[in-house]
Amino acid sequence: MLHIFLLFSLIFTSTNVLAQDFCVANTASGIVTPSGYPCIMEANVTSDDFAFSGLGVPGNTSNIISAAVTPAFVGQYPAVNGLGLSAARLDLAPGGVIPMHTHPGANELLYVVHGHITCGFISSANKVYLKTLKKGDVMVFPQGLLHFQINAAGKRPSLAIVTFSSPSPGLQILDFALFANDLPSSLLEKSTFLDDAQVKKLKGVLGGTG
Amino acid sequence: MLHIFLLFSLIFTSTNVLAQDFCVANTASGIVTPSGYPCIMEANVTSDDFAFSGLGVPGNTSNIISAAVTPAFVGQYPAVNGLGLSAARLDLAPGGVIPMHTHPGANELLYVVHGHITCGFISSANKVYLKTLKKGDVMVFPQGLLHFQINAAGKRPSLAIVTFSSPSPGLQILDFALFANDLPSSLLEKSTFLDDAQVKKLKGVLGGTG
Amino acid sequence: MLHIFLLFSLIFTSTNVLAQDFCVANTASGIVTPSGYPCIMEANVTSDDFAFSGLGVPGNTSNIISAAVTPAFVGQYPAVNGLGLSAARLDLAPGGVIPMHTHPGANELLYVVHGHITCGFISSANKVYLKTLKKGDVMVFPQGLLHFQINAAGKRPSLAIVTFSSPSPGLQILDFALFANDLPSSLLEKSTFLDDAQVKKLKGVLGGTG
Amino acid sequence: MLHIFLLFSLIFTSTNVLAQDFCVANTASGIVTPSGYPCIMEANVTSDDFAFSGLGVPGNTSNIISAAVTPAFVGQYPAVNGLGLSAARLDLAPGGVIPMHTHPGANELLYVVHGHITCGFISSANKVYLKTLKKGDVMVFPQGLLHFQINAAGKRPSLAIVTFSSPSPGLQILDFALFANDLPSSLLEKSTFLDDAQVKKLKGVLGGTG
Amino acid sequence: MLHIFLLFSLIFTSTNVLAQDFCVANTASGIVTPSGYPCIMEANVTSDDFAFSGLGVPGNTSNIISAAVTPAFVGQYPAVNGLGLSAARLDLAPGGVIPMHTHPGANELLYVVHGHITCGFISSANKVYLKTLKKGDVMVFPQGLLHFQINAAGKRPSLAIVTFSSPSPGLQILDFALFANDLPSSLLEKSTFLDDAQVKKLKGVLGGTG
Amino acid sequence: MLHIFLLFSLIFTSTNVLAQDFCVANTASGIVTPSGYPCIMEANVTSDDFAFSGLGVPGNTSNIISAAVTPAFVGQYPAVNGLGLSAARLDLAPGGVIPMHTHPGANELLYVVHGHITCGFISSANKVYLKTLKKGDVMVFPQGLLHFQINAAGKRPSLAIVTFSSPSPGLQILDFALFANDLPSSLLEKSTFLDDAQVKKLKGVLGGTG
Repeated sequence: MLHIFLLFSLIFTSTNVLAQDFCVANTASGIVTPSGYPCIMEANVTSDDFAFSGLGVPGNTSNIISAAVTPAFVGQYPAVNGLGLSAARLDLAPGGVIPMHTHPGANELLYVVHGHITCGFISSANKVYLKTLKKGDVMVFPQGLLHFQINAAGKRPSLAIVTFSSPSPGLQILDFALFANDLPSSLLEKSTFLDDAQVKKLKGVLGGTG
Repeated sequence: MLHIFLLFSLIFTSTNVLAQDFCVANTASGIVTPSGYPCIMEANVTSDDFAFSGLGVPGNTSNIISAAVTPAFVGQYPAVNGLGLSAARLDLAPGGVIPMHTHPGANELLYVVHGHITCGFISSANKVYLKTLKKGDVMVFPQGLLHFQINAAGKRPSLAIVTFSSPSPGLQILDFALFANDLPSSLLEKSTFLDDAQVKKLKGVLGGTG
Repeated sequence: MLHIFLLFSLIFTSTNVLAQDFCVANTASGIVTPSGYPCIMEANVTSDDFAFSGLGVPGNTSNIISAAVTPAFVGQYPAVNGLGLSAARLDLAPGGVIPMHTHPGANELLYVVHGHITCGFISSANKVYLKTLKKGDVMVFPQGLLHFQINAAGKRPSLAIVTFSSPSPGLQILDFALFANDLPSSLLEKSTFLDDAQVKKLKGVLGGTG
Repeated sequence: MLHIFLLFSLIFTSTNVLAQDFCVANTASGIVTPSGYPCIMEANVTSDDFAFSGLGVPGNTSNIISAAVTPAFVGQYPAVNGLGLSAARLDLAPGGVIPMHTHPGANELLYVVHGHITCGFISSANKVYLKTLKKGDVMVFPQGLLHFQINAAGKRPSLAIVTFSSPSPGLQILDFALFANDLPSSLLEKSTFLDDAQVKKLKGVLGGTG
Repeated sequence: MLHIFLLFSLIFTSTNVLAQDFCVANTASGIVTPSGYPCIMEANVTSDDFAFSGLGVPGNTSNIISAAVTPAFVGQYPAVNGLGLSAARLDLAPGGVIPMHTHPGANELLYVVHGHITCGFISSANKVYLKTLKKGDVMVFPQGLLHFQINAAGKRPSLAIVTFSSPSPGLQILDFALFANDLPSSLLEKSTFLDDAQVKKLKGVLGGTG
Repeated sequence: MLHIFLLFSLIFTSTNVLAQDFCVANTASGIVTPSGYPCIMEANVTSDDFAFSGLGVPGNTSNIISAAVTPAFVGQYPAVNGLGLSAARLDLAPGGVIPMHTHPGANELLYVVHGHITCGFISSANKVYLKTLKKGDVMVFPQGLLHFQINAAGKRPSLAIVTFSSPSPGLQILDFALFANDLPSSLLEKSTFLDDAQVKKLKGVLGGTG
């Protein structure tokens, strides 16, 4: 009965060749489109492309925010290209904080691996949604809304894994957007009502000019 | 040959009854879904539903920001429900500013009806895109990114019409999100690096508590 | 505290490099996909890419229709690539008309900058939606439906800005589709019930053959 | 080993209850949203809901166009709700024609069951794509573009099955849109360049007024 | 009045050049993206690209399953690229069966051209939907669910045309997925509860290893 | 300066009321649409709606598969409605296995919280992708493809959190679909090539009839 195999092959192979179950990104192609990167041909894809070990390594939290973000976006993890998903690891040392930020391109779901984390977001209706999560809890942060995470585990670190509804969620950190580029202080102050002294101070710290 | 009409009707009417070219929102139904509001039945839809005059009326700019935003989102203009579009009017008196804000749910295209407007947005890569537009110019602001508009017409007012890639673009004004609700100052300061004095001052002005 | 900047950079830079907030079209690449053109790399994008001045220039209405359409589709305005938006300028001299047409790929929102414009569209249920708009009014035209705009400002010109729910809305002008190509008259007459004399006359005017 | 079943049930049943593999339309609910009709609960869905026999019945072609369209859109065939598909049957008697029309909401794929059919469509670039198909051939007609089908089987009938990329493709028949409603002749003539005599003649035949 | 043509051309041509009504796949480009293949330029597209004759040729059913599947997916039929549609032909000789399979990327609509076909699918709620269709009947199979088709016309063949809600629906045949590759028998048996003898037997028939 | 607050309110409040940043499911409404459940009004939404503790509780693995799946789909976790995301917890005791299954409606991303897990999926091209993951690793499983997870931690348990690209991913467990309902054995055997004895045995275990 070996010819079942052969006949099946004749019938279905041409279809299979063109199936597009997934689209592992060819990030070296120099091409990106609104739908993502071109795909590596399936013949060249291996099991290793689908797995990613980068989120298993703790981020370095020896910094001012006592925290670290390790992304597994399409750039780091090409297998998520076109799949409507990506991930990141949040390490929060004691006192650590992921500062106020937005993801312009995705909704987010956070899972607390260990520790306690105080999470908050603010809606378009200007309402604050605030919650201190414990190990095993999840919370969602809708697309484009300002949110933050703060370690609430006292002297212990906390760890969270977040996933996004896009391979390329984007990340706009408020302090960076305001104080760490060449946005002229006059425009910044006029559009935020922040005092000149406050702006100058944070521009100084974060390297902003203008 | 009148029977062409009759026969066409017999053949095609059942189809037409069920066509769904548009979906004027029944905002009084008490129902909203992720795809928008339920539709008013086409038999009850009139030409007036598709037109909207609210953007023809200047907003009241006698306020601290010397500016006004008049929305034509699905709430005000039910015809845009399901169409992937909405609009708003921006009035900028001399010195007027539309403060730093984002639209979490839509891209934006701005058209300058008269005057000059300085527009800026900041990308996820923390790069500032800044441009002073004149009458007739357009500019796009990608979804979820911080942006602002400032009158640049000296002693004259400016007027812009903006359109969005969603009937419900959302609007998160930075100062409101930070200073005009009950977000505790301690969390706000920890997640933004703003000084306590600055926070207290703006909370005082904008009515924030916490 | 300068090291905040440095540490932030170490943590977040790799993310930022791969963010895809927007995708300014590389129209010179020779590649188009169903989702649009490949993106210019962000490092090569400037503020000028996001702004467009072409809609500030009146179209030449010294023609038979006394009207002009100036598009800002992705071909003219590469910044709208992937953003679900584009625009156009409609100039209507006295007596001007934008002839019956459809946009196969987008919904449309029209804003009257000045003048009066009589607008109409016809639904799949064969119902006519007709409205004369004044300065400041908006009206929507659902995707794929026949519609037209006629100057209603008497001896004065009218101006409208229209936006679309796609960077590439398409444009099918009825008279062009019927009479300005090589569609054989016999097929055209059989499928439209138009008289041969009428067809021949308009083919003559519009340069159609067949 | 019966307890495998029991244990599986305990673990997975709650999930299954909420699965949404399909959404058979509750067309009697009085509710339609931009994404379609509400779903009948799966407990009330039967095999009969997924099958539809209406396309097996020849349409009545004893009419002026010697043709008939039998739709299986969401209104007739509730199972396609939310599935991005629908269908219709085209009967073409000798001399039969499906007049020039568009589907504003879907792409179309036509399959010739028997006979020969001359099919044509016109692109936004005003190019005519014309093809006479034989039994077994397929052809696609992109969304929103004018197209028509004419029997090319001489004295024999032809039959085609068409499918659409939407449960609610819409249907705008050109002659109906122009001549079978109350669109004022003055506006029609100004926007189509058709002669008054031609307009009056076809309005007379098709029952148009105005 | 020839200048209507000329003036129209001046006004509208630039738009037309960039319209994207369709996107016939350039399958030879070596590029595929999550949204599909790059488009052939419209100037090089002809009527022949939109039609496809491959479904008019009966498949070879002289095999163990007494059946054949002839696909018109984007690989065989480049015109469906980006259109959200594709098709296939199912030939079922007497006793023929299309074995249990899924389409991971599309919903399916089946039309019986001639004969009788017993069709079934199983939902996430583990409910069986079973129906014997006759000539002219249609049935839908929701995305990703296991389904099969069996000839029910006794000694006569049956023919069906199926269409999909994607140009690239994919096809996972259960027996092939389980028994015709190198999936280790130990993992297969542990994850399916099939007996080792059964697994070995079907691996033997279908050429599986491991 | 208190009137900033008042004036801002006057200008922006109407917009805010209608913003649709999120759509927490009203699962008690008796209505579901293709886009999901109707939304609870924002006035009635609290922080508790966005957080979910159900994934913090170990599933009961005292069963034949020595494993448990705890879902946080839209039914259990209404906040994910419309957000394109959901989650589940996989508990794998020593020897535990999540049997061969598919998610017809979503891509999946798995994160190993602790332990070692052997994961595999099979593509439309019939290629096996197999990988043993350790703590901290992630792996993606494309939509609709057969896959499984097996504990590889020896005598220790493993724990994984999976997220999906849909609030309602569906779940089709192969053995259940084949052997735990009323699918007639004759059709099952004909469409799977499984032996009658094998089918009878597993139907017996899993409670199938027919």
